[in-house]
Amino acid sequence: MKKSLGANTIALPLPVWVIGSYDAAGKPNAMTASWAGVCCSQPPCVYFAVRPARYTHDCVVARQAFTVNIPGVGQAAAADYFGCTSGRTVDKFAAAGLTTHRGGYVDAPCIAEFPLVLECKVLKALELGTHVMFIGEILDVSCEEVLLGVDGRPEVSRLQPFVYSTADGSYYAVAGALGRAYTLGKHLAG
Amino acid sequence: MKKSLGANTIALPLPVWVIGSYDAAGKPNAMTASWAGVCCSQPPCVYFAVRPARYTHDCVVARQAFTVNIPGVGQAAAADYFGCTSGRTVDKFAAAGLTTHRGGYVDAPCIAEFPLVLECKVLKALELGTHVMFIGEILDVSCEEVLLGVDGRPEVSRLQPFVYSTADGSYYAVAGALGRAYTLGKHLAG
Repeated sequence: MKKSLGANTIALPLPVWVIGSYDAAGKPNAMTASWAGVCCSQPPCVYFAVRPARYTHDCVVARQAFTVNIPGVGQAAAADYFGCTSGRTVDKFAAAGLTTHRGGYVDAPCIAEFPLVLECKVLKALELGTHVMFIGEILDVSCEEVLLGVDGRPEVSRLQPFVYSTADGSYYAVAGALGRAYTLGKHLAG
Repeated sequence: MKKSLGANTIALPLPVWVIGSYDAAGKPNAMTASWAGVCCSQPPCVYFAVRPARYTHDCVVARQAFTVNIPGVGQAAAADYFGCTSGRTVDKFAAAGLTTHRGGYVDAPCIAEFPLVLECKVLKALELGTHVMFIGEILDVSCEEVLLGVDGRPEVSRLQPFVYSTADGSYYAVAGALGRAYTLGKHLAG
């Protein structure tokens, strides 16, 4: 028996991605987004949604570029911190003990210590209500070499990603392979 | 040291949500989407992206509504199966041993056996390339009562959600609480 919980954003699991951008003075800025995901295969696109009052909004509008920095569980505290404060007033990277370098493909900063980084140029901005969606074309994905498997792709067990649940406002580790897509449920096709 | 993996959709972790819709004859249809997520807080919105050739595309265009049915690990095989075949040719629900009922808020089917269901009306459709994004306003969220905690919200440990990784095309369980948002990294604010 189901119970109605009303009209809200209780939806899970969601990614925890740190959006990198430069401000007008060229200072690197970061914010954590769970309103984020993949939205097209070709061109490869991701989006994140942000309130227009946030510092990142103006940075991304000005440079038309952002990075998606994907943390492992070892960076969970830093990722949470990036969502707690505004880059207007503090140098978030210094506080978190992290460093950045300019992307090789777009005018946005990559977090050196985060294992997986996507460099994106803005394709569209879409106003929805409280949030603006920035849809970006992924120009490059880069990953720490030590986390790559023999097939040259990132290994989830080494990357140790985590997710966010709006149901309880908490982060959870991703662990325990369940099976491969297009295989796990194939027997149901009869 | 990072290695470039090129321009692609290696991004994780991603949700595994089953999109429910009715076809022209009123037959319930389902497809599994990982190009999906939350995109606005107010009005509460989610999106999913789909290739225009998919059966779900035409169903959602016609009815301007869809459901997001969120599976637990116990429904992982069914969720994978929904991504393997087309509702044009088979009754996916019969094959998966699942049942549906019409949503109370929108003209789309809810999967009875899935623990968490969002009912959405289409606000926008956005063509991006291979995929069309459907952005839907969430009119209601409903959850199995036995999965709710004392605070009346879904408990992740009972819901047992899982994610998809494009890096290896595999599903992974979500487990192990890491901490609460706005708390885990607060100490870094000094």
